[in-house]
Amino acid sequence: VDELTEFLRFRSISSQAERTRDVAQCAQWLAAHLRRIGLKHVQVAPTGGNPVVTGAWLQATNRPTILVYGHYDVVSPEPLAKWNHDPFDPVMRVGALFARGANDDKGQLFCHLKAIESILASEGELPVNVKCLFEGEEEIGSKNLARFIEGNAKALRSDVVVISDTTMISREKPAISYAQRGGLRAEIVVCGPKRELHSGTFGGAVHNPIQSLCEIIAALHDRHGRIAIPGFYEGVRKWGDEERAFMRSSGPCDEAIRRDAGMERMWGERGFSVAERTTIRPALVLNGIAGGGVKGHEAVIPSCARARLSFRLVPDQDPQRIANLMKEHIERIAPPTVKVRVRAESPVRPALMDRRHPAMRSAALAYRGEFGAFPAFVRSGGSIPVVDTVYRILGVPAVLMGFGLPDDQRHAPNEKFDLTVMAKAIGTCIRYLFLSAGPHRRDVYARGGGNFF
Amino acid sequence: VDELTEFLRFRSISSQAERTRDVAQCAQWLAAHLRRIGLKHVQVAPTGGNPVVTGAWLQATNRPTILVYGHYDVVSPEPLAKWNHDPFDPVMRVGALFARGANDDKGQLFCHLKAIESILASEGELPVNVKCLFEGEEEIGSKNLARFIEGNAKALRSDVVVISDTTMISREKPAISYAQRGGLRAEIVVCGPKRELHSGTFGGAVHNPIQSLCEIIAALHDRHGRIAIPGFYEGVRKWGDEERAFMRSSGPCDEAIRRDAGMERMWGERGFSVAERTTIRPALVLNGIAGGGVKGHEAVIPSCARARLSFRLVPDQDPQRIANLMKEHIERIAPPTVKVRVRAESPVRPALMDRRHPAMRSAALAYRGEFGAFPAFVRSGGSIPVVDTVYRILGVPAVLMGFGLPDDQRHAPNEKFDLTVMAKAIGTCIRYLFLSAGPHRRDVYARGGGNFF
Repeated sequence: VDELTEFLRFRSISSQAERTRDVAQCAQWLAAHLRRIGLKHVQVAPTGGNPVVTGAWLQATNRPTILVYGHYDVVSPEPLAKWNHDPFDPVMRVGALFARGANDDKGQLFCHLKAIESILASEGELPVNVKCLFEGEEEIGSKNLARFIEGNAKALRSDVVVISDTTMISREKPAISYAQRGGLRAEIVVCGPKRELHSGTFGGAVHNPIQSLCEIIAALHDRHGRIAIPGFYEGVRKWGDEERAFMRSSGPCDEAIRRDAGMERMWGERGFSVAERTTIRPALVLNGIAGGGVKGHEAVIPSCARARLSFRLVPDQDPQRIANLMKEHIERIAPPTVKVRVRAESPVRPALMDRRHPAMRSAALAYRGEFGAFPAFVRSGGSIPVVDTVYRILGVPAVLMGFGLPDDQRHAPNEKFDLTVMAKAIGTCIRYLFLSAGPHRRDVYARGGGNFF
Repeated sequence: VDELTEFLRFRSISSQAERTRDVAQCAQWLAAHLRRIGLKHVQVAPTGGNPVVTGAWLQATNRPTILVYGHYDVVSPEPLAKWNHDPFDPVMRVGALFARGANDDKGQLFCHLKAIESILASEGELPVNVKCLFEGEEEIGSKNLARFIEGNAKALRSDVVVISDTTMISREKPAISYAQRGGLRAEIVVCGPKRELHSGTFGGAVHNPIQSLCEIIAALHDRHGRIAIPGFYEGVRKWGDEERAFMRSSGPCDEAIRRDAGMERMWGERGFSVAERTTIRPALVLNGIAGGGVKGHEAVIPSCARARLSFRLVPDQDPQRIANLMKEHIERIAPPTVKVRVRAESPVRPALMDRRHPAMRSAALAYRGEFGAFPAFVRSGGSIPVVDTVYRILGVPAVLMGFGLPDDQRHAPNEKFDLTVMAKAIGTCIRYLFLSAGPHRRDVYARGGGNFF
């Protein structure tokens, strides 16, 4: 906990340009830590953006190689007023460690480091080869990661990538995410008058960029919550009753999702459960909007308004095609009385893993050993760009062993990591490395009570 | 110019709470200046908000009393980056004085003070009684002015109020505004989740407050630019061909308005000219919108989004009725999956003055004496709350002698006051006081070439 506290003190907020130095210092600290626990070949590798931290232990001849991925950057702690304390001065309280990044993802990646350190300290060697890959741009779309992996494909060659950046069903029931939605980010900028205009003098005769932007945004959904971009749903895979029944039995129920969201009423596409809306169905989310002023109230027609939005995409949607459809749709509806610019970036393809892969079995057994329960195999609504990137470049599958709790406030004020879960997470990581060493025996799984996926 | 420069240095931005002290210091400076030029009974009167500065010269027995109204508060200078220099460090350049408030309204009210000072210095007395009333909240809706005038109705009793806070047609052609639109400000706040939610985990199943706000805003206009609030246009006075022809002949042409706005294409309600859309037709203007973040790009569903908007109203619309219609409309269209709050404030009734009133004739003659041309009688798109307030409480008509140029950048970066116009404006104010002293002789007007309204 003391070491993690040190790690959490770095304000490694990747979305804020003024934090570039904090991010770099955090990477240096992490690299030093890798060296200290016994990893070799440790590097802080520069990229076009924030550095990637790598390290490895490669002395398990003829054994599999596990790539451990994590990210040391965090999202902004805003709104600060809603935190009970400084988000970068970690506090231990009611059995949990509270800080920005405590869970997402500094805390979770740290469990793998503590697992490696434990085994090396007690055994003198690891049962498998391990390569670590920790990036500093996950929260801003992993912009430079693909190029880094492409340039270091040989050094990163491995049999599986293990990633801990997701959540469990509850503190008793772990979960492995076998599907993540893809993503695409976009910005829409609407410009009207070259300068702010007096709203009395010109109001009624000049197209207001805020109004025009709102009209464009309103035209992105129909009134039933479906995305109204023509062609958007073409290519969305239809799942049969069997998979939908599996999802119902293994994933969280709608009521649990509603409670986690803290909402009175959910919303979205008709004909699909809340769980399905957040996993096998795509979404378009407005992340931010700004134009003119809302603090004072001045009589102006602003000259510009902008919005940021992101798509969550599902198999078999192609982010590039979605970007084009969105641009065409907005061009079609944009009125001639304002200037509209649309920019799309950070495309991430949706990912889907085989639940029956041996590496999934190792993970399931590791979880069961610590938590006393096999994990649920669930789909995630979020995007983990590295999953597709690693599969595409290195050809290896990902195992997503998450250790977050639903109320850990990831991306929100008062983020935390439960200390009991943390201890079990380290144990799970230790077990995973040992279980990955040998062949996976059917009878071991059978003892768990049958088919868990 | 040196004195006005001192006056302009005060950051008397009424929309910014942190500027309250600057506003108060500006009021004190103004009061001291009134005393210095020879006005009596000078006071800085507290209100519920920013103080009102008053002063008077009442020794013209049996002569009319002129109330001079102005405001010493200014709008925020944002965006600062678009100014060529510090907006509160006035700069003289190409025959003009550049600063926030140079024209609106510190510069214009200052012309009346210089006129009074000149006459007192040369004649030892004024040809009429003068009362000054300078407020510090015009740019935020004159919230406390009505109560102040009500409480001081006897002290403010007068025959006419003269206000210089409008613009001329050009540097050769003055203008008197005989109609101003009314106003109403509103704020719409849409709240969704209690805290920011991860847009991957919940995207598609939680109603996004930005999206919902945009849908509400989009439903405030139809696609032809008309306001879509049911009942909104009931009560809007229909003007006959005669008045519309007068407006065409006296007001600016559509092309001139387009040029002033710096727009390639104008916008608005069909069936009305651009000039009409900004004067005899009402408008709904979005002033600001904000929600989530647009600087970084983080994967969150924000918990709230808000917009500020304002109405421009025309005879015979009642601001209170419009507030109710808007609230009912938004309540009707607000979805049950978010919480929507609407607040309306700062109602201002539209104002319409008799172009044939003797005080108008004095003003027209005063202008002609300095500018060599009779003023155009025009309608303004903006609201000047004091016009209705003074008429309602004191029962006196207003004469709006404006001295701004169309390109003076009122409410915009690089606001200025042309020095040649300023000199003529002071002369016009001097003439106006003398012309107000005596009866208005038809033959004086006849010399001007006939019927100027």
